[in-house]
Amino acid sequence: MAPVGAALWRSLCAHQVYGANTDVGKTIVSTILCNAVNHRNAEEKSAFLKPVSTGSLDEADDRHLQRHAPNTLTKCLYQFDEPVSPHIAARQKKFTIPRDDEILSSVHKTLSSWAGNGVSFALVETAGGVHSPGPNGNSQADLYRPLRLPIILVADSRLGGISSSISAYESLLVRGYDVQSVLLFWDDYYQNHEYLGNYFRNKSIPLVPLPPPPRRPQSQNSDSQARDREALDAYYSSVAGGVDVVSLLDELALRNTQRIEYLEEMASRAQKTIWYPFTQHHGMAARDITPIDSAYDDFFQTYTPEDSGQQGKLQATFDGSASWWTQGLGHGNPGLALSAAYAAGRYGHVMFPGNIHEPALSLAELLLQTVGNPRLQKVFYTDNGSTGMEVALKMGLRATCDRYGWDASQEQINILGLKGSYHGDTIGVMDCSEPSTYNQRVEWYRGRGHWFDFPLVKLSQGIWRVEIPEVLRESLGADQELPSLDAVFDLEKRVSSDAGARYKKYIFDTIEQLVLEQGKKFGALIMEPIILGAGGMLFCDPLFQRCLTDVVRDNPRLFDGTKASSTESYPQGDLAWSGLPVIFDEVFTGLYRLGRKSSASFLGVNPDIAVNAKLLTGGLIPLCTTLASEEIFNAFTSLEKRDALLHGHSYTAHAVGCQVAVHSLQTMNQMDGNGSWSEFKNDWKQPHTNDEFRPREGLGVWSVWPHRLVRDLSYAESVDGVFAIGTVLSISLKDAQGAGYTSTAAKGLQARLTAGGPHFNVHSRVLGNVLYLMSSVTSKKESLREIESLLREALL
Amino acid sequence: MAPVGAALWRSLCAHQVYGANTDVGKTIVSTILCNAVNHRNAEEKSAFLKPVSTGSLDEADDRHLQRHAPNTLTKCLYQFDEPVSPHIAARQKKFTIPRDDEILSSVHKTLSSWAGNGVSFALVETAGGVHSPGPNGNSQADLYRPLRLPIILVADSRLGGISSSISAYESLLVRGYDVQSVLLFWDDYYQNHEYLGNYFRNKSIPLVPLPPPPRRPQSQNSDSQARDREALDAYYSSVAGGVDVVSLLDELALRNTQRIEYLEEMASRAQKTIWYPFTQHHGMAARDITPIDSAYDDFFQTYTPEDSGQQGKLQATFDGSASWWTQGLGHGNPGLALSAAYAAGRYGHVMFPGNIHEPALSLAELLLQTVGNPRLQKVFYTDNGSTGMEVALKMGLRATCDRYGWDASQEQINILGLKGSYHGDTIGVMDCSEPSTYNQRVEWYRGRGHWFDFPLVKLSQGIWRVEIPEVLRESLGADQELPSLDAVFDLEKRVSSDAGARYKKYIFDTIEQLVLEQGKKFGALIMEPIILGAGGMLFCDPLFQRCLTDVVRDNPRLFDGTKASSTESYPQGDLAWSGLPVIFDEVFTGLYRLGRKSSASFLGVNPDIAVNAKLLTGGLIPLCTTLASEEIFNAFTSLEKRDALLHGHSYTAHAVGCQVAVHSLQTMNQMDGNGSWSEFKNDWKQPHTNDEFRPREGLGVWSVWPHRLVRDLSYAESVDGVFAIGTVLSISLKDAQGAGYTSTAAKGLQARLTAGGPHFNVHSRVLGNVLYLMSSVTSKKESLREIESLLREALL
Repeated sequence: MAPVGAALWRSLCAHQVYGANTDVGKTIVSTILCNAVNHRNAEEKSAFLKPVSTGSLDEADDRHLQRHAPNTLTKCLYQFDEPVSPHIAARQKKFTIPRDDEILSSVHKTLSSWAGNGVSFALVETAGGVHSPGPNGNSQADLYRPLRLPIILVADSRLGGISSSISAYESLLVRGYDVQSVLLFWDDYYQNHEYLGNYFRNKSIPLVPLPPPPRRPQSQNSDSQARDREALDAYYSSVAGGVDVVSLLDELALRNTQRIEYLEEMASRAQKTIWYPFTQHHGMAARDITPIDSAYDDFFQTYTPEDSGQQGKLQATFDGSASWWTQGLGHGNPGLALSAAYAAGRYGHVMFPGNIHEPALSLAELLLQTVGNPRLQKVFYTDNGSTGMEVALKMGLRATCDRYGWDASQEQINILGLKGSYHGDTIGVMDCSEPSTYNQRVEWYRGRGHWFDFPLVKLSQGIWRVEIPEVLRESLGADQELPSLDAVFDLEKRVSSDAGARYKKYIFDTIEQLVLEQGKKFGALIMEPIILGAGGMLFCDPLFQRCLTDVVRDNPRLFDGTKASSTESYPQGDLAWSGLPVIFDEVFTGLYRLGRKSSASFLGVNPDIAVNAKLLTGGLIPLCTTLASEEIFNAFTSLEKRDALLHGHSYTAHAVGCQVAVHSLQTMNQMDGNGSWSEFKNDWKQPHTNDEFRPREGLGVWSVWPHRLVRDLSYAESVDGVFAIGTVLSISLKDAQGAGYTSTAAKGLQARLTAGGPHFNVHSRVLGNVLYLMSSVTSKKESLREIESLLREALL
Repeated sequence: MAPVGAALWRSLCAHQVYGANTDVGKTIVSTILCNAVNHRNAEEKSAFLKPVSTGSLDEADDRHLQRHAPNTLTKCLYQFDEPVSPHIAARQKKFTIPRDDEILSSVHKTLSSWAGNGVSFALVETAGGVHSPGPNGNSQADLYRPLRLPIILVADSRLGGISSSISAYESLLVRGYDVQSVLLFWDDYYQNHEYLGNYFRNKSIPLVPLPPPPRRPQSQNSDSQARDREALDAYYSSVAGGVDVVSLLDELALRNTQRIEYLEEMASRAQKTIWYPFTQHHGMAARDITPIDSAYDDFFQTYTPEDSGQQGKLQATFDGSASWWTQGLGHGNPGLALSAAYAAGRYGHVMFPGNIHEPALSLAELLLQTVGNPRLQKVFYTDNGSTGMEVALKMGLRATCDRYGWDASQEQINILGLKGSYHGDTIGVMDCSEPSTYNQRVEWYRGRGHWFDFPLVKLSQGIWRVEIPEVLRESLGADQELPSLDAVFDLEKRVSSDAGARYKKYIFDTIEQLVLEQGKKFGALIMEPIILGAGGMLFCDPLFQRCLTDVVRDNPRLFDGTKASSTESYPQGDLAWSGLPVIFDEVFTGLYRLGRKSSASFLGVNPDIAVNAKLLTGGLIPLCTTLASEEIFNAFTSLEKRDALLHGHSYTAHAVGCQVAVHSLQTMNQMDGNGSWSEFKNDWKQPHTNDEFRPREGLGVWSVWPHRLVRDLSYAESVDGVFAIGTVLSISLKDAQGAGYTSTAAKGLQARLTAGGPHFNVHSRVLGNVLYLMSSVTSKKESLREIESLLREALL
């Protein structure tokens, strides 16, 4: 499945012709338009492409053009000789059915060669209606979508044609097509052109009614065929020069030019008005901004501007950051788009307090069930990871202060966390991270916590290594080596090893010192399980996170201050929190990003509060959930309104987001259940895995990135370490300058990926000296292989 | 335009029959299903309703049922005797065309009476295809949407029928319909039933293929008609008992029951899993939660549970809080839904740093142009008002600290604001409000600012009164009376009055005291212009907000601390900020909520930073913008990455939100331009307005709520004061208990509105002793009138 660039040329005004139904006269309209091109200017070249044609060769649409628009170049790519839908015609023939990507690539190649050969106007005519299946059974509207040609829609002038024309238009619209013109035949009785003319005018889409073509003669003898041909020729020559048709051609040409001009200008206009997130604008030039015309599946269609006579062009660029880690089910996913539209059409907005609607309820139930943590009973909705973490923080602090009887207005309550953590950019959750480059210039930032240094895991020279940072060497000992990634995650074994004991002692001693000697109070333990994302794709030794949780939960007396001698008054049981509420920020790592429903499951820890976002809505729309235990929830119930969690946003639990999330989550759960990733999983069941650490069935760690690639990269000269889990591949590069915000080596690798391979470029992101790649959960093996080749070329 | 309840009865399984196209056999399918009901159980009653029929009476579809399903009740509401689309047939007749709401109401009444008379199965058959226009020219899919009957779609078995069937399905889906079953005729050649069967099975929609009906004889003599009838009867009796058809009936009945069961359970299931925003859950029962099945235009469809044998029912409830102040263009707006789907289909997600896409660029440009404040040059995107205000706060603090050379890590920088302000629930912006019930239980809350008491405006006993609070009497003098609302807003006059001078002196003295005596430092002035929403719909005297801004801008030496003797080094000019950056939180009050593009325009103040959300996306989807001046922007440019605004969210500038916002904003701008609100505006050009205060053309204050109503309410015994601006009506009630979070009087009025009037109930919200009502910008005068009557009954 090689991707294709979207179709766009300055020199060639190319359109796709879709019909509101079969037999609405697409080919007649195509003939009229192609003739009109020549009528306007005899020197101009027009061309007609029928990618897939069914019916007898003689009746084929390209033949019709050859007869009646003799100056037009014509081509048919695939001809099936039965007048039925291509998916049926194709399977009745004895030859190989072209793959969808082959069809796309042939269409692009044909148009491209026409563009290079002086053709100024081209039509690509579909078969049947917009959703008529192509040879492989996929709807044409979906099949041709990556090209995203602007559309000429031939509407239906018959009885019922208003309805079918509008529905066809809507089906194109929800797939992100731009319909640039509608044509149809006059019918004085049904007058569809009048109704539809008004309808499309309101959408700034010109509709051109055409005189109806002569009726086809009933008999098929050669005389009548000749008469038919003459009548048609007379018809065509009378219509081709029509004012409406010629001005439509001008309009279409203008829109093609405008589209390109807009793409040329977008970057500089953006620079003028847009204040970008996380961006130092000083020195930023328009060329640093990439216009994205559309996106489909794993690919952005990025625009490369015109340069010294070269036409600007759109090209497929692999979205290697999973669009800021949000992307799950592919860009431009029509199923998700329809789910969004369904909820928008059913509800719009439902103000949430005091009300309930189906998407919010379904998602709450589905999510609790999916995550499968028995502690988590309640769902609180917000809009993004940052607000969801603010809510989690408020929950945790309240529960702790209530249990331990602290007055937080009189003293500072801190959180326990890890260095390099990131929980969002609102000031409350910024305060949950240690002072750093990111917050030092935020005037109201006041870090409130203690953040542990921790050991990192990486594959280096073929060996999985737990690296103990310098400052922890004395307490935690030397680096450890483990035989496989599965062994790294074999926590039931590791937690009772010497290393586990050392980790726990160090953690216990540190907290004891903070509380008893420094008098600090803590309100919650907050962690991103497994990978600290924004902090630099840091793969934290899961044993450390597990031990930290265990120490906090096993030692409530460490935290309670006033009640150091007795813990008996605290709630007991499997679902009760102990020591501190444990908050897991799974915004990035949750919901299959690392190949599992929850990243907490890697640690064997059930947090008391968990936050999900990003993949939750499959990369479409903002939504965040904060899940909490019944006990945390009860810390907010009282007779007083003021004790409630007085937090909400206008679009809390908005119907569109919840509906899309239900769709996304169901799809991923199905994929998980039906073995969609089994090839990747098998690849990671390594023969060299030490039997001792063989994971229980279904618990192995796996990645979409090939195990061999990861291992080979770990030997590369410029690579310091590498790891892959789920959809994430992280490559840490050796850099003389150390790990600044950007490193030269990482930037170099990024540039190599940007230059791309045979079929596409690769967009990637760099964090310090780390370049990471992240796929969606639906990425194709072929794409990943091509990226593998690029990485091997660049690094090995 | 009276609204109608959605159609739902436990005793009656009612469906709407839509066709994928005209002539696909809707009536034959209806006949089969009605016959099958009787075949299953001879005692069961079925019924068939054709709301609008075209073509000769004899050919009419209800006649067909009478002939071939003799046990079925039939009814046709409107018959037009030409076989064309109803919108054409209707205009060729000499009689009155029924309004769409009349048709809806007749359908509902008919079904209701059938439900009460033992009918267990009913079909409502549409004319033509899903988008075939009704008598008034509106698409049937839109026209019937308020009833939201579950759908039986008759698919098209002809060539091209796959496409038209799927497109028709999609058009229904994006309007929030539930398609519960698809039926179509076998065609062994085209085999559409096979393709569509798979297609719909994947969506859990059962598809039942039916044997094709006998061909109609060509000649029309009575013999052939009789044969035709016999053949049809034979056909019907062979099909009606088919296993597939009978099990479909069972399935449909089951789904009807399940839908009701779900509506019955929703509240208690929600109570089990949902943690509601701003809600004290203690003592909350399931009955306190309202299930909302759908929403359309200004109305929720709320579910009233079954009670002592009474069937549960859906009813239209006016959304009197504009769905938490978000609602602009009506719930379930198909245009907005399609815009959302278009962007979802075109892009999905586009990670924003370094990239640009059309919706984000278009919105940025359109918004800056709409707001029309020359200071505002840059657009920063976030997800909601709270995050947008966090960004505004970071912007303001940085600009001030940079200019005045303050090290904010060493000392506290405060904000200046008003008491009762609200800017969201993330902790950073909570700190921008004074200590109160809302934040006292948030452990990390630390109010950082000074908040002014201020005079309130209200209409009381027919007089517009500026009420000076007790604590300000000494400084500001006695209450003022003004002859009209326009006079209240005549700031150019009032600012130079005695009152203006007193306001300014008081403000100046206060700030001077705070800075010079208490040594406080301030980083920004933050206000909600005109109305402080969450604080209790407080209508702040606009003169006070204007004077506060003027004092801050005219006296930079008040703030700069170290440079008290000279201001010359500060940037000069119309676009430069002076004293403090002025931040306007227009999340609630902006973008036509108060009848104008910006609420800042009422004050004649151009803020340096402005935040918009809520109406921005027409009540569909979270999105927020923070607009800033070039100078503020420049405070973040340097050679250092760390100086940039390091803030962002995953879905920053998400394509779906931006596209919907462009659509929403363009629509409102058009309404503003084309006089959509002129009737409301004229109503507020009061003859008794003192000429002295007559506003300049186009600058008058107006409301959708009638001027007479507001005036009359101001005399009501239980009313303390009232005001209306734009879409907002606020009624402050006298309450012995004072203004707590809820007051008895306000709750009483709310209960009265909930009980509703002849056509609908009214959902409203209470803040303390204030009950407010808020419409969308497209609310119909008829609805508003009915609410007016309710208010008059309750209060006068």
